[in-house]
Amino acid sequence: MFDPTSLHGIIPPICTPLTEDGEVDVPSVHTLVEHLLAGGVHGIFALGSTGEFALLTSQQRQALLDAVIAAVRGRVPVLAGILDTSTSRCVERGLAARAAGADAVVLSPIYYFRASQQELIHHFRAVRAAVGLPLLAYDVPTAVNVKLEVGTIKQLAEERVIVGVKDSSGVVDAFRHMLLATRGTDFRAFTGSELIVDACLRMGAHGSVPGLGNVFPAEYVRIYDLARTRDWEGAAAIQERLLACFYELIAQGDPGYSASSSALGGFKTGLKLKGAIAGTRVAAPLHSFGPAEEERVADVMRRFGFL
Amino acid sequence: MFDPTSLHGIIPPICTPLTEDGEVDVPSVHTLVEHLLAGGVHGIFALGSTGEFALLTSQQRQALLDAVIAAVRGRVPVLAGILDTSTSRCVERGLAARAAGADAVVLSPIYYFRASQQELIHHFRAVRAAVGLPLLAYDVPTAVNVKLEVGTIKQLAEERVIVGVKDSSGVVDAFRHMLLATRGTDFRAFTGSELIVDACLRMGAHGSVPGLGNVFPAEYVRIYDLARTRDWEGAAAIQERLLACFYELIAQGDPGYSASSSALGGFKTGLKLKGAIAGTRVAAPLHSFGPAEEERVADVMRRFGFL
Amino acid sequence: MFDPTSLHGIIPPICTPLTEDGEVDVPSVHTLVEHLLAGGVHGIFALGSTGEFALLTSQQRQALLDAVIAAVRGRVPVLAGILDTSTSRCVERGLAARAAGADAVVLSPIYYFRASQQELIHHFRAVRAAVGLPLLAYDVPTAVNVKLEVGTIKQLAEERVIVGVKDSSGVVDAFRHMLLATRGTDFRAFTGSELIVDACLRMGAHGSVPGLGNVFPAEYVRIYDLARTRDWEGAAAIQERLLACFYELIAQGDPGYSASSSALGGFKTGLKLKGAIAGTRVAAPLHSFGPAEEERVADVMRRFGFL
Amino acid sequence: MFDPTSLHGIIPPICTPLTEDGEVDVPSVHTLVEHLLAGGVHGIFALGSTGEFALLTSQQRQALLDAVIAAVRGRVPVLAGILDTSTSRCVERGLAARAAGADAVVLSPIYYFRASQQELIHHFRAVRAAVGLPLLAYDVPTAVNVKLEVGTIKQLAEERVIVGVKDSSGVVDAFRHMLLATRGTDFRAFTGSELIVDACLRMGAHGSVPGLGNVFPAEYVRIYDLARTRDWEGAAAIQERLLACFYELIAQGDPGYSASSSALGGFKTGLKLKGAIAGTRVAAPLHSFGPAEEERVADVMRRFGFL
Repeated sequence: MFDPTSLHGIIPPICTPLTEDGEVDVPSVHTLVEHLLAGGVHGIFALGSTGEFALLTSQQRQALLDAVIAAVRGRVPVLAGILDTSTSRCVERGLAARAAGADAVVLSPIYYFRASQQELIHHFRAVRAAVGLPLLAYDVPTAVNVKLEVGTIKQLAEERVIVGVKDSSGVVDAFRHMLLATRGTDFRAFTGSELIVDACLRMGAHGSVPGLGNVFPAEYVRIYDLARTRDWEGAAAIQERLLACFYELIAQGDPGYSASSSALGGFKTGLKLKGAIAGTRVAAPLHSFGPAEEERVADVMRRFGFL
Repeated sequence: MFDPTSLHGIIPPICTPLTEDGEVDVPSVHTLVEHLLAGGVHGIFALGSTGEFALLTSQQRQALLDAVIAAVRGRVPVLAGILDTSTSRCVERGLAARAAGADAVVLSPIYYFRASQQELIHHFRAVRAAVGLPLLAYDVPTAVNVKLEVGTIKQLAEERVIVGVKDSSGVVDAFRHMLLATRGTDFRAFTGSELIVDACLRMGAHGSVPGLGNVFPAEYVRIYDLARTRDWEGAAAIQERLLACFYELIAQGDPGYSASSSALGGFKTGLKLKGAIAGTRVAAPLHSFGPAEEERVADVMRRFGFL
Repeated sequence: MFDPTSLHGIIPPICTPLTEDGEVDVPSVHTLVEHLLAGGVHGIFALGSTGEFALLTSQQRQALLDAVIAAVRGRVPVLAGILDTSTSRCVERGLAARAAGADAVVLSPIYYFRASQQELIHHFRAVRAAVGLPLLAYDVPTAVNVKLEVGTIKQLAEERVIVGVKDSSGVVDAFRHMLLATRGTDFRAFTGSELIVDACLRMGAHGSVPGLGNVFPAEYVRIYDLARTRDWEGAAAIQERLLACFYELIAQGDPGYSASSSALGGFKTGLKLKGAIAGTRVAAPLHSFGPAEEERVADVMRRFGFL
Repeated sequence: MFDPTSLHGIIPPICTPLTEDGEVDVPSVHTLVEHLLAGGVHGIFALGSTGEFALLTSQQRQALLDAVIAAVRGRVPVLAGILDTSTSRCVERGLAARAAGADAVVLSPIYYFRASQQELIHHFRAVRAAVGLPLLAYDVPTAVNVKLEVGTIKQLAEERVIVGVKDSSGVVDAFRHMLLATRGTDFRAFTGSELIVDACLRMGAHGSVPGLGNVFPAEYVRIYDLARTRDWEGAAAIQERLLACFYELIAQGDPGYSASSSALGGFKTGLKLKGAIAGTRVAAPLHSFGPAEEERVADVMRRFGFL
């Protein structure tokens, strides 16, 4: 039986490898999972933003999650994103994740409509009750237009509705406030701020869900290990190298396409260059990289000594 | 065979009546459709924002659309919203709408992720090609975080990818710019700015998709008819009465809940008071009105002489 | 004695002509005022956004206002913007405007800090009491980050603190709501939405403060006159021509510079081409047009038949 | 001669004490300066946001700066904010600061209008050249609506136009990126993120400009000193206590007033309770605290053991 209070460390939001015709590339899911586990990651988060969950059909989401769970074979916990636009839809996604064998589920505020904090408290309670798996909150206001307030997270934690949080808000002050408000409990806090993971661990975060950790799992695990030994200089040195690389990696998409496609293309090209996935396709309508964009990413990787 | 160039007039974004346990209330769909048709509306738009599409499961969406099409019995065109978060998901929704018998489909930019205008052009082209029904663009930036630029709409219109637009952007300048850019063609432009419908008709809009038109279909049809005769004073008088009522109707929800729940609850209570639907339930996690809130809406309706 | 209830019609927010070394070009102020009065404008608004008030020193603001008042010689009312970042600073500006002989003053919410509606009510009261001139509210949320709510405007109008409003919010629904809320009183409402002036007049606005009216005063006066005779077709025809020209006129700045510099450069080049001012300089740090940009504006003017 | 490369440590953005009639309370400036210096601060930043610069008249700004410089008597460097809405206005403020004897000046992007990064580069160059004092950039996008990009700061640093930056953007990722981009040079970076000062020092910041440091100068200096000895646990313990207090301290204003007035009132009441200033008046139109609000702040201070 999975114990959610044991969640810790580096839990990358796994990319969803796609074939040329846009379906889940199951063999690449297996190589990607091995790449992550070889890096020492402590868990895998499937169907997050970096996993392009919003761009996949229900069948594709299911295929991805099944493939990840099959590939992981229980070696680390698998968390499944169940973000959607209503309580009923999130419950459906949660039940599917449970049937697939996920260890825990991850839920944000609904999107398209903007719910109030009070409505979100009802939402989290209802999804938790219906799904019956450990639940983590996902704070990602740039995508869903609503911030989970510290008071909301605290209340849901005290009610044992949520066992933890993934904070991708970028509002570090509020994240630290939340860390303080839940300290001394079993609550688990993970940062999605992939460029200041060392700092967040210093503040008391239990780990990170770094998109860039797809490409550099071993480096993030090393940051985590150094932080455990309180070697903040060492942790910072690696984090800084990743930070400098990150800003170039995500900036190689052709003009006219979205920032998301440039970031996803950068990550997927990095993975392809490392042999972890077969192709760099991103789901439509986001743009997929062509050879020139991939070559620019390769240049970045070489320049930073990662190839 | 449906001719999309014949689209015109008042096409309310029909509310989705729900039972106490949150399922589509099919008998109420029939009474609501009769209420709208008795008001003289020229079409019905199912599964828009006012129709709570984002709060419904796929099965519920299907049930709603089937019920609407069955109730309408071809008396007016039925447009179906197929908004979703990726090209593949929108195609799935479009094919379902086609199978159900919708006359045309309505598509916004994807949400959750933010696509570029260039990516959206690909998106609209791909959905149109796969679905094979007349397609209208839906500009609703407050929900999807991206505005459809005039140039994008113009290009899609020239390519015959879209036959029209529903503008809920609130950016009246740009709407007028778009009207000018497509004048003299078959392109059909509808405003979702339900409080300035007369002004938009004056500018050349072909009609409106007013959420408030659920409650007041005859009044909106009267605005449209007066506009056709160029009686702008008469049209304005009705529009002003609706405007004053609107701001109070949507403001009766209890504090602590979202603006969307207050607006939807106001509309649904208005419909219940008029006998058009049985109950005021709104899908979770949005708040559903209780008796006190319904009573406040009744007060508003009485005060404005609508009861 | 100036009667503010007589305010009406087209009141352009006059551009501030600058010399090559960035000082107020007094001779051009005189030719520009004559250009506007020859067009038949009903008033002049100095030191608004289009007048670059925020880019001018206190001495330059004084020089501009003195020059405008001297040039106008009482032929039409002169309104002076007194926007600033605190009550004390706005009072200083108001007293200076009064000393210079302005007929009325125009005040927005403070900027830099964001005041609450309650704080703004105190602000308007205090400035009105200290300055002793008729006061108009200026709603310009994109610049000051705060919207004047309809309830705030209504309360200030009922207290006789403000005699009118210039609405540059772009939120036409709320503008119409405000028109209804103040109808039947002496309150005067002007729209800054320069591309839908005819529609706003139809809704009951008393006039407009169109930035584009610097270049095309006679055309805007013609819109106003046609609206007075309820010739909405005629008014719309002119407005549409101006709208189409506007979007090109403001888009000729070189890449890398701000939208404001492109718009101000477009207006000033239009004025130079019409012989109304000597040069197109815009105050730093905004970009001033060079010959290539001016030439592109000339092309636009010729293409639309305005040269 | 002041050496800007020596700037370091805790440099509070000093509050502006006001008398009951809203003028600068010069005696309180002196007691406040002594309070800060007794706490060990390494510099004082006058006329920043916390100093209500935007709410003061030019005379009041001058009076405040004169009083601060007189009170400091050269014991630490005095930085003066010269934020304004145009190049010419900032130059005026800069020359006044220089005449008053400031050691360095601090400049943000212009507000009201939004300049492009290219225009801002011209702006900083022009102000630096005209004023002739060491210049720091101030990144405060929530107030001025424009973010200083890392590339802009880097270019200005390489040109020696700016000697440092105060980052109040809250975007910690970008701040760290900037720290890396300027490492190994004389450039000095200070964080305004007063709740994560320890983390920013760990990342390489040279110090902080914490608004809360008005009330707790010794505590912030202790954080800085512990960081210098790499005692991150000790630094965090103090920072966490300040963080918890902060969120309550700034939340005691009556409903209906702005967040800024609640924060400024909280700081000033804290200072009054410590005997550092005589009164809690905030400049209009922002709200000034009454006795009940002050009492709630006193409760907070007692609860956290700071009284």
